[in-house]
Amino acid sequence: MLLHHSSWPEVEAYLKRSKGIVIPIGSTEQHGPNGLIGTDAICPEAIATRAGAEADFLVGPTFNVGIAQHHLGFPGTLTLRPSTMIAALHDWVSSLARHGFERIYFFNGHGGNVSTIEAAFAEIYADASLAQDASNRGPVRCRRVNWWDFKPVMDFCKERYGSSHGAHATPSEVAVTYFLQPQAIKHVEMSPKVAPWGRYTDADSYRAAFPDGRIGSDPSLADPKDGEKLIALSVAGLIEDFRKFEAA
Amino acid sequence: MLLHHSSWPEVEAYLKRSKGIVIPIGSTEQHGPNGLIGTDAICPEAIATRAGAEADFLVGPTFNVGIAQHHLGFPGTLTLRPSTMIAALHDWVSSLARHGFERIYFFNGHGGNVSTIEAAFAEIYADASLAQDASNRGPVRCRRVNWWDFKPVMDFCKERYGSSHGAHATPSEVAVTYFLQPQAIKHVEMSPKVAPWGRYTDADSYRAAFPDGRIGSDPSLADPKDGEKLIALSVAGLIEDFRKFEAA
Amino acid sequence: MLLHHSSWPEVEAYLKRSKGIVIPIGSTEQHGPNGLIGTDAICPEAIATRAGAEADFLVGPTFNVGIAQHHLGFPGTLTLRPSTMIAALHDWVSSLARHGFERIYFFNGHGGNVSTIEAAFAEIYADASLAQDASNRGPVRCRRVNWWDFKPVMDFCKERYGSSHGAHATPSEVAVTYFLQPQAIKHVEMSPKVAPWGRYTDADSYRAAFPDGRIGSDPSLADPKDGEKLIALSVAGLIEDFRKFEAA
Amino acid sequence: MLLHHSSWPEVEAYLKRSKGIVIPIGSTEQHGPNGLIGTDAICPEAIATRAGAEADFLVGPTFNVGIAQHHLGFPGTLTLRPSTMIAALHDWVSSLARHGFERIYFFNGHGGNVSTIEAAFAEIYADASLAQDASNRGPVRCRRVNWWDFKPVMDFCKERYGSSHGAHATPSEVAVTYFLQPQAIKHVEMSPKVAPWGRYTDADSYRAAFPDGRIGSDPSLADPKDGEKLIALSVAGLIEDFRKFEAA
Amino acid sequence: MLLHHSSWPEVEAYLKRSKGIVIPIGSTEQHGPNGLIGTDAICPEAIATRAGAEADFLVGPTFNVGIAQHHLGFPGTLTLRPSTMIAALHDWVSSLARHGFERIYFFNGHGGNVSTIEAAFAEIYADASLAQDASNRGPVRCRRVNWWDFKPVMDFCKERYGSSHGAHATPSEVAVTYFLQPQAIKHVEMSPKVAPWGRYTDADSYRAAFPDGRIGSDPSLADPKDGEKLIALSVAGLIEDFRKFEAA
Amino acid sequence: MLLHHSSWPEVEAYLKRSKGIVIPIGSTEQHGPNGLIGTDAICPEAIATRAGAEADFLVGPTFNVGIAQHHLGFPGTLTLRPSTMIAALHDWVSSLARHGFERIYFFNGHGGNVSTIEAAFAEIYADASLAQDASNRGPVRCRRVNWWDFKPVMDFCKERYGSSHGAHATPSEVAVTYFLQPQAIKHVEMSPKVAPWGRYTDADSYRAAFPDGRIGSDPSLADPKDGEKLIALSVAGLIEDFRKFEAA
Ligand code: NI
Ligand code: NI
Ligand code: NI
Ligand code: NI
Ligand code: NI
Ligand code: NI
Repeated sequence: MLLHHSSWPEVEAYLKRSKGIVIPIGSTEQHGPNGLIGTDAICPEAIATRAGAEADFLVGPTFNVGIAQHHLGFPGTLTLRPSTMIAALHDWVSSLARHGFERIYFFNGHGGNVSTIEAAFAEIYADASLAQDASNRGPVRCRRVNWWDFKPVMDFCKERYGSSHGAHATPSEVAVTYFLQPQAIKHVEMSPKVAPWGRYTDADSYRAAFPDGRIGSDPSLADPKDGEKLIALSVAGLIEDFRKFEAA
Repeated sequence: MLLHHSSWPEVEAYLKRSKGIVIPIGSTEQHGPNGLIGTDAICPEAIATRAGAEADFLVGPTFNVGIAQHHLGFPGTLTLRPSTMIAALHDWVSSLARHGFERIYFFNGHGGNVSTIEAAFAEIYADASLAQDASNRGPVRCRRVNWWDFKPVMDFCKERYGSSHGAHATPSEVAVTYFLQPQAIKHVEMSPKVAPWGRYTDADSYRAAFPDGRIGSDPSLADPKDGEKLIALSVAGLIEDFRKFEAA
Repeated sequence: MLLHHSSWPEVEAYLKRSKGIVIPIGSTEQHGPNGLIGTDAICPEAIATRAGAEADFLVGPTFNVGIAQHHLGFPGTLTLRPSTMIAALHDWVSSLARHGFERIYFFNGHGGNVSTIEAAFAEIYADASLAQDASNRGPVRCRRVNWWDFKPVMDFCKERYGSSHGAHATPSEVAVTYFLQPQAIKHVEMSPKVAPWGRYTDADSYRAAFPDGRIGSDPSLADPKDGEKLIALSVAGLIEDFRKFEAA
Repeated sequence: MLLHHSSWPEVEAYLKRSKGIVIPIGSTEQHGPNGLIGTDAICPEAIATRAGAEADFLVGPTFNVGIAQHHLGFPGTLTLRPSTMIAALHDWVSSLARHGFERIYFFNGHGGNVSTIEAAFAEIYADASLAQDASNRGPVRCRRVNWWDFKPVMDFCKERYGSSHGAHATPSEVAVTYFLQPQAIKHVEMSPKVAPWGRYTDADSYRAAFPDGRIGSDPSLADPKDGEKLIALSVAGLIEDFRKFEAA
Repeated sequence: MLLHHSSWPEVEAYLKRSKGIVIPIGSTEQHGPNGLIGTDAICPEAIATRAGAEADFLVGPTFNVGIAQHHLGFPGTLTLRPSTMIAALHDWVSSLARHGFERIYFFNGHGGNVSTIEAAFAEIYADASLAQDASNRGPVRCRRVNWWDFKPVMDFCKERYGSSHGAHATPSEVAVTYFLQPQAIKHVEMSPKVAPWGRYTDADSYRAAFPDGRIGSDPSLADPKDGEKLIALSVAGLIEDFRKFEAA
Repeated sequence: MLLHHSSWPEVEAYLKRSKGIVIPIGSTEQHGPNGLIGTDAICPEAIATRAGAEADFLVGPTFNVGIAQHHLGFPGTLTLRPSTMIAALHDWVSSLARHGFERIYFFNGHGGNVSTIEAAFAEIYADASLAQDASNRGPVRCRRVNWWDFKPVMDFCKERYGSSHGAHATPSEVAVTYFLQPQAIKHVEMSPKVAPWGRYTDADSYRAAFPDGRIGSDPSLADPKDGEKLIALSVAGLIEDFRKFEAA
């Protein structure tokens, strides 16, 4: 059930049977020579949409630009400053809390978002914690899970890609997008085959360390069929994990 | 050409032939008894995507939550505070400017966004205007157009819906979403047939004045075939207007 | 009745008969070769003061620096960033709401303020709309009207100046200030007679497009006697409009 | 020379002979049973205007709402939050610096503004101090002086009012406004004759300690003729002090 | 009693006998050729710790970086922007208010902090003053005192150092740190013997006016034994003043 | 070498041999029935101080209040909001960068700080990444390490405390503070012996889940001698890790 495709009376009815919602959250950033700039938003959005349809829970709009300042050396990347993202997440959650949602599950597609999402949760909770009388606030609870966090997903990646999986522009995330958007498949020779590892700070330092944008990966291994399998594994993980969270 | 489906080398190549990009911008808010909560994001996104494919220009991710505080009396609505939205738009435009984009065209689907988008433009320009030495900043230029602003679109609405078009949850925008998402069509009897007009301030005042969320409209008139026609008219308008802006 | 010339017991007494107040709001920005930098604040302040005296309503201090980043290429212009102006208007309205004012009428003298004022209203209303329990907040309502919005004023301008009225540094606003401040009348030959039209973004772009600051106008037509007439027309419009708003 | 009554070419010409400007800064707050709510803005504005006319220096618009949260228990008071006021002063000074002003003299009418004005100066200077390369910033210098700071003014108050002068709603400031706005003179019996002294924090604590708003004063002593004298003394002080600052 | 060395049950017990706490607040900034960069934090922390131990009141953590933008021309200085410091103090006080603390006493070691601390108090109080219903907020009261404000301390300095005391990097504060940290005593020949006086704005202007960082002082007079005496005098002053504040 | 005990010429000299500095960063929050509220600041401060003395590197002031909103249900806890902490860290790092520091090593004592510190790094780097011309900014690089992250420290904890170590108010951190502050040792019977595990959101939820503040730990096992050992192990780890970072 997609919030964007629902009417308000349908949401009103939903709230009588559940106080939970899933918000896909990603990034708009370079993903190497053959990866899609929207990868980190496309993956959690597609997985959450399938899971929501299968298990009949509500999926909200995708938070599609995140923390990607380090990728700004590559054209097409967009970023929020962390302070902006915290303010935006605060507004999203406050809006949902107004309606009576009590379990907000952020389903994340970008490692670089993790710290800022967790900081935003603390900012949100601080409203109640700093209030001298918190009694008129609802018990909103937030959770963040990455789409690859479920064990079967991680096992599949380790087995299928081994040391070519890497940390950015991985074959697994590219495979997911290739399954979903076959018309956008790009055939690029990787050089070197497997990208280097390293550290970075800002955009210039990142581009100096990773000239084509990849970290430790060989995304030419990306196969749409693997993408389909990864989606199925993650859908199953999400349904189980969200149900637990919703009931807690 | 969708930014989300492109790789960074493709964007790098694009920047050699154009400095312009279209950003769909909408809202996530109630649209009456039979309208989709995502209407205001879905419409400009779909029109821009078609236009970008037809005329080969770049379309960025959709800014999908906007200014909808007055709709918060209806479940499912999300809002940003205007100050948050200004900060977020500032970050989006700064990111694009870093890559050399000079014409940022916001294609809008929500009347309630207009003031804040224009305020954000002033905030962005003020960076250069208040600088004592502005010489190291690029000449970024922003523009906002609503998808219904083109004369053929407005003529169609006037002729087709007359005084039943209204101002919120209009049959035209609902028709566009029904063409795009036929599985989400909702058959609801409107009562009264045409919704009232009026003024509002915050969420409680809005719901008191417009009990089912509509303003002045009869969205039961929404027909997917009209939606298809409206999209075609708006696509043509957008292509022409963006080309002028890009060249200016 | 001017707030600045009243004592607090007089305001306390006023609040027993009205919950409404008018706040003049303008800008401090260049107004072409013969226009006063304070024009946009002087006009609404003078009109509101006369209207308040005639109809016995309260007029607050003038918000005298607004959104004028695009005029910063001309010496003497001051601007706020939109985010600053939103914060300031939020504080002004919150102060008035604390005293029990429920109808805050912003009487505006500057087109460039409009978007930010409207965005500020949404920011203010969002306090109540996002609150889970809004019951302890008063029903504050805001309105913005430009001093030239009344039909008799616009008719006068069209008839008197025709295509020489323009959009910035207009003969009408200059005439109003010349009536009010005859010692500040400046005799300047305009070249060209009627200024060009065009678009602009930041301060440098504005000055490049409009070398002497005017847009589309010939303010050498400004005549103090017309200013007197314009004031009278706008005073009448304001009294009628404010009374309606106050009673709504 | 008033900025508001000048044209931009006049300011351009002024900048060739001086880089200095005076900004009156006050507050909009209760001033006891017979004092004007605008007192703290009216006094520095009138004194600066006279001084600027006499000595031919530029006087900008009045910053007319300041820090008055403690007076909000009395109807008519407006306040900014200190963080808002710092942002606004930052924008005002940045605007002036863009034009080449290098000496910004804030002529203050409200003791409660002092801390926040000084904090704003530090915020402004920090832009240059924290920059790694400050070389492209102009040497803007700010100064704050209260209109009663000059020795002849203070001597007059001590001699004329002695222990009835007090700290808020003083006979001297009321006298200045009575001279300037004789139609607004209010005859009120003070009870007690001289108001109490004490401490306060927020608005409720202030009103509890000072039931009619005065602190330590007997403003029924206010005489317009004394106001005229006080203005003359402060005008002389301002001219001398501004000239020194401008030349430093 | 140090908050940092207490457990929460001990603080819970303390709150039954007192609602007051002392927060040392200083700066991290250059203190001339022989002064410690931590001087302004070390002094109030040590004095408050001794006073709290002697008189059994609670002393919180030291707010150790303050407003020192003007000292940034000298290596080792850290500063907050005033707006940041206001936000941080707001959070500290809100945290304490949540626990029921009602008297927050800031014991300050840096003149440059004074304005921003006072502005922060107004920001904090404004929460209650701007609320339409302030009844659910506790009566938190703040106070700021500098460690040298007590008359015996000032008399000692005047008598002991006379015109060599100066305004920054004074022999008194250096003496206090030398008593506390004898291993950090630095023997430096001052040149000139007594530093100049003057005005400053940002970091560059400060360093130009005061080449070795001192203002008006000869800190080579600093003697650990005087430091011991100064601590004793200030401890006595603090105990007496805090007890009055706590009881008010 | 402590920044607080150094003079600016000593820091100037230091910068000729190193561009690195260590900043201890902790929290002020309840640590269970027998733990010190300052634990998370005391531990990294003491370890860094010892390491800096042994290996001759610079240690800055301790950032002593962090993210502890979830502990506000227990008296004595202080918190910053994440947005405030990001602003403060931004100012600290900007100050250091102004002096030429290029490696800022945050040595952390509180798990709850991690997300916000990492978000702050992204906020800091974004200044350069979003700049169109980043060439005038220094290559500042930040790093965060927790004092218990070094393998020998973790091994010691696992071996010594096993399943009684827990996640908050652990015997290891309490042992460190008991070694450092033996006078503050508190003998408290734990009930239950080992505290429960669980999840939490805001302050009320935390206190409901963890009635005495501990998570999964038995801090009655804390022994000062173990604290001494832990300090030695962490000092060694810090020296090695900082030297690598400084040289990178
Ligand atoms: Ni990715
Ligand atoms: Ni719509
Ligand atoms: Ni105008
Ligand atoms: Ni006053
Ligand atoms: Ni000092
Ligand atoms: Ni801890």
